[in-house]
Amino acid sequence: MLLDRGMVFMSDTRTNAGLDNISTFCKMSIWEEPGERVITLLSAGNLATTQAAVSLLNERMKAPEERAPSVMAAASMFQVAQIVADTLREVIALHDEAGQRADSAFHATLLLGGQIKGSAQRLFLIYPEGNFIEAAEDTPFFQIGEIKYGRPILVRAFDAGMSFEEAMRLLVVSFDSTIKANLTVGPPMDYQFVEVDACRTATRGRIEEDDPYFQTLSNGWGDALKHALDRLPVFDAQD
Amino acid sequence: MLLDRGMVFMSDTRTNAGLDNISTFCKMSIWEEPGERVITLLSAGNLATTQAAVSLLNERMKAPEERAPSVMAAASMFQVAQIVADTLREVIALHDEAGQRADSAFHATLLLGGQIKGSAQRLFLIYPEGNFIEAAEDTPFFQIGEIKYGRPILVRAFDAGMSFEEAMRLLVVSFDSTIKANLTVGPPMDYQFVEVDACRTATRGRIEEDDPYFQTLSNGWGDALKHALDRLPVFDAQD
Repeated sequence: MLLDRGMVFMSDTRTNAGLDNISTFCKMSIWEEPGERVITLLSAGNLATTQAAVSLLNERMKAPEERAPSVMAAASMFQVAQIVADTLREVIALHDEAGQRADSAFHATLLLGGQIKGSAQRLFLIYPEGNFIEAAEDTPFFQIGEIKYGRPILVRAFDAGMSFEEAMRLLVVSFDSTIKANLTVGPPMDYQFVEVDACRTATRGRIEEDDPYFQTLSNGWGDALKHALDRLPVFDAQD
Repeated sequence: MLLDRGMVFMSDTRTNAGLDNISTFCKMSIWEEPGERVITLLSAGNLATTQAAVSLLNERMKAPEERAPSVMAAASMFQVAQIVADTLREVIALHDEAGQRADSAFHATLLLGGQIKGSAQRLFLIYPEGNFIEAAEDTPFFQIGEIKYGRPILVRAFDAGMSFEEAMRLLVVSFDSTIKANLTVGPPMDYQFVEVDACRTATRGRIEEDDPYFQTLSNGWGDALKHALDRLPVFDAQD
C-alpha cells in the first residue's frame, strides 16, 4: 500500500500443489542500493513461474555485459515495471509453448513497488499477460492472490495518513481474515516498510504463527468484530 | 443458516450477463403448505439454469399424474434434496449436451432448506453435479455464489443462539461487505425466517437499497470496523 509516509508490503509464505502438498516459500524479493533505489517484488500464482522470473532478473544483474536490461540499472520505476513484466511474460510463454497445457497453470501475478532517487514512490500490479497498472490516489493499494476475504476491511479502513504501525495492524487483520477462511494462505508473513525519499528499507521482518502480536490481533479481532456488530441496531421486521 | 430457533435465508437479486447487462431477479423460491411443510430454495449461478430447474419443479407439482416426484409430496427433506438435485443435474446436462460449450457456463449451485412436519429442519447445499451436502452442528450455515468477501464476519460472529433479528443484522453486514467490493452482488435482498416446528414462513420480505435499516448498517459498519480496529494494539517492530 502507498501511504503518505511511504510504502508497506506484506506477503504470506504459503504455497501449495494441492492440499496434500503445502510448503513455505518467501514471496517477497527486495533489490536495494541504499539511498539510490529500493525495489520490492511480491508474487502470487505458480511458484515455478515466479521463482524463474526472479532468478532471471537476478541473473541479469550479475552479468552486466548481457544486453538484457537490469532492474538495478533502469532509469525509472516505469522501466523497472516493463523489465519485470517482460520477464514474467517470457517465462509464462516458455512453459505454455512447451505444450504443457493446463488452465492458467503457469500464470502468476506480481506486485512491484519502489523508488529511484529523484522520482516518487510508485506501485504496480503486473498481470501474467505482461501488462500492468499503477496505483494512484483513488486506488492506493493492491492485493494479489487470494484477495477477497481480506478486501472488505481494507476498503473500509484504509487511510493514506496512517502510520506504518497502524498500516501493519490493518494488514495483519486483513491477512488473518483470509487465513481463517482459506488454507491457501498461511503464516508466517513477511513485511517491509519503505519511507518516502529514503530509497532504502526502513524495517523488514517476518511474523511467525506464534508471534504474540499476531496472536493478540487474531484473537482480539474476533471479539472486536462481535463488539462492533453489537453496536449496530438489530433488525426489526416492522420498520 | 440453521439457528436454535429456526432457519434464516437471505439472497440478493443481482444477475448479470456481463457488466453491461445487469438485472434484478428474485433468487428465492418458497413452496409451502403451512403447518405441514415449508421448503425454501436459493440459487446462484446461471439464471437460465436455475429458472428452468425451478420451473420444472413447479410443473411437476401442477401435474400430479406425472411419474416424476414432487417436492410437495416427498416424504422427507432428504428426498426433496434428491429431487431438486436430480432436476438441476438434468437441466445442466441438457444444455451441455446441446453442444453449447463454455467453461461451467450452465452451472448453478442451490441452497435448499426446510422442514416437513414430524422431522427436523434441514439445510442442504446442492452442487451442479447433482450431489449435495447437509449443514450440521459444526457447519450450521452455507453460502453460495460470491461467498468470500462476506465469509470472515460470518465465521467470526455466527452463533446458533442468535435471535432472528440478530441473524438479520449479521447477514446484512455480510452481504454489505460483498456489495461494497463486487458488482455481481447487489440489493435488494430477499429474506425469510422459518421457526422450528412451525412448518410455515414466519416472516419474509425484501430490503431495498434505500431501506433505512440497510443504510444504517451499511454506513454504521464502516465506522464500527474502524472503531474495532482502533481497539487493537498497533504494531511495534521492537516487540
